[in-house]
Amino acid sequence: MIYLDNAATTKPCIDAFRRAERFITEQFHNPSALYDEGRQLQSELKKARSVLLSKVADETWFECIFTSCGTEADNHAVFSFAKRGNAVTTAGEHSAISACFHELKNKGNVEPRITPLLADGRVDVEKLLSLIDDKTTFVSVMHVNNEIGAINDINAIARRVKAKNPRVIFHSDGVQAYGKIPYRLSKDVDLYSISAHKIGGLKGVGALIKRKSLVISPLVMGGGQESGRRSGTENTFGIMHFAYSAEKKFSCLKEDFERVRGMRETLWNGLDKDVYVRLSTEDGTPYILLVSAKGLRGEVLLHMANDKGLIVGTGSACSSNAKTRYSKVVLACGFDEKTADGVLRLSFSPETTKNDIQGAITILNEVGRELARRMK
Amino acid sequence: MIYLDNAATTKPCIDAFRRAERFITEQFHNPSALYDEGRQLQSELKKARSVLLSKVADETWFECIFTSCGTEADNHAVFSFAKRGNAVTTAGEHSAISACFHELKNKGNVEPRITPLLADGRVDVEKLLSLIDDKTTFVSVMHVNNEIGAINDINAIARRVKAKNPRVIFHSDGVQAYGKIPYRLSKDVDLYSISAHKIGGLKGVGALIKRKSLVISPLVMGGGQESGRRSGTENTFGIMHFAYSAEKKFSCLKEDFERVRGMRETLWNGLDKDVYVRLSTEDGTPYILLVSAKGLRGEVLLHMANDKGLIVGTGSACSSNAKTRYSKVVLACGFDEKTADGVLRLSFSPETTKNDIQGAITILNEVGRELARRMK
Repeated sequence: MIYLDNAATTKPCIDAFRRAERFITEQFHNPSALYDEGRQLQSELKKARSVLLSKVADETWFECIFTSCGTEADNHAVFSFAKRGNAVTTAGEHSAISACFHELKNKGNVEPRITPLLADGRVDVEKLLSLIDDKTTFVSVMHVNNEIGAINDINAIARRVKAKNPRVIFHSDGVQAYGKIPYRLSKDVDLYSISAHKIGGLKGVGALIKRKSLVISPLVMGGGQESGRRSGTENTFGIMHFAYSAEKKFSCLKEDFERVRGMRETLWNGLDKDVYVRLSTEDGTPYILLVSAKGLRGEVLLHMANDKGLIVGTGSACSSNAKTRYSKVVLACGFDEKTADGVLRLSFSPETTKNDIQGAITILNEVGRELARRMK
Repeated sequence: MIYLDNAATTKPCIDAFRRAERFITEQFHNPSALYDEGRQLQSELKKARSVLLSKVADETWFECIFTSCGTEADNHAVFSFAKRGNAVTTAGEHSAISACFHELKNKGNVEPRITPLLADGRVDVEKLLSLIDDKTTFVSVMHVNNEIGAINDINAIARRVKAKNPRVIFHSDGVQAYGKIPYRLSKDVDLYSISAHKIGGLKGVGALIKRKSLVISPLVMGGGQESGRRSGTENTFGIMHFAYSAEKKFSCLKEDFERVRGMRETLWNGLDKDVYVRLSTEDGTPYILLVSAKGLRGEVLLHMANDKGLIVGTGSACSSNAKTRYSKVVLACGFDEKTADGVLRLSFSPETTKNDIQGAITILNEVGRELARRMK
């Protein structure tokens, strides 16, 4: 089975699993316990924090709160800081942000403002800035779009946002960026969400990176873990596995970036242009190639490909829970419903091989041509 | 090392780990994905739900929402239903409930009402009922107290609560009861929190059992997982491990209950009564024995025991994050500060052996006598 749905989830890193296994078999204690075994686990968690944080941010300026997933980190950011006035985000956000913005009016009388996208999936920065005024408390702009793969220059955007209103808290959903594209967070970014299972970690682990001096209220409260910002017994096994996976990813991030970009282009070059159009641009993340099979239904192609041994997505896996037929992100880029209906998301990992790419080309062309014949 | 802090966390079940390992190594896909591998995972999750639920409740009446921990399940229950009027709980609750009640006034103008405890740690039911009136929307009474081990008859309490005000939503924190003591939830209980890592499961997994017909708003929103009640990619490995651990625990729950009760009594009988007084009563959970070393500091004894190869607690592990020196639960039972200061919590699992108990007796008597000598 060829697996090209790595933006939905990645195969957990087995090396990291073997390294972290001792947190199930031996060091299983409660990290809040007062005895030596508990304190040793706190020290391991501290190391994990440092590993995860240092790869993308200055540890003297930022810290990291462990959460149960990227979605929780996004929710935590929005509901802690979008409390009055208005809050601004983009039409390209993952539902973990867009659902919160939808809820804002009920929660705290905040006016949500949504910025349109450019054709390539990036946010329209001028329009974003025009939505920010004196009453704006919170801005959230995702780093790498999870469907089309567009990269927003969040440091530059955060700088311009703060120039317009320095009191704004700036958040970015970095779930599809962390461990995949090279960057360092600037001091203009206040909050940043990451997730383990998109880079070989386990489902059920995420983190909210935050500026140290920013005071945040908890979303989940109780025993006071994570310095009172996120209660619940720490998921030591999952957290350590996340850190070990990240160490591995970051050790060859730039080489992987170039190699995967090459594979993405090989895949695109091999696809039948009578069947597929390309929606992702070349300057997006190498890890995602969004294409559309003109006049065909992506979901049908997904199942046909699945039968032949290829796993692909049709956009956000999460959106399969939604009632909406078309990807709102694809529509927000200005594509028509027919194009949105034919969407296939091909997403890679550093473990994707050249053979996978060649196999995917063959299967995608076969199923695309076959379905096109049937539709005539 | 003898481990008697199983109420803080238990050693993960290795059999369950081996069974669940395939959800890391092979079936690692996103359960929301449309292809076969995703749908198969949904079917596995459905089986896990049924296993976990059927052990304590009628599946035609109740359903289960997976969460990241017992704390999240507790938070979800409180913040979804304590929205106006007043809400009633007990002085014996875990901080996952008491912190939420503390927050209620800020969140939704709800008046929190706290019921005192009886000397044995159970809630004073008559006083609880006296606090319930027409404006009460939510009542939360923990099933088994995590510090002193007292068991509340939640079915009977829920029935009397509903007789007084049928519109009340009744919740119970069952984290220390599930998989440990025999019971079935009655239809008067609307919501019930459970946690994996207290019964051989992994940290980072819990569930909120709820009456099917009760509509609940999400605490964490986004991709619409868990039928829209808890978003975030499902932690398949952790959830399946939870179900496998529960299968094992429930297969011999009653035999374990009797055997562990015997061990608890053996331990108590072996302790030097010049040093220790017993706070837990015989009719509490067999899995917890709370004692106090009169005039001594429990924390010092904990470290002395730790040096000699015995791990015990001093009450809730979570409370080690708190600034308060004394267990509020112990004080709420009417014990004085001196008694509260000397508290040691000895908590068992079905894996605890007779040798562990004999070793613990020796060490606890040694360190207790030694510290008493030093204090003279």
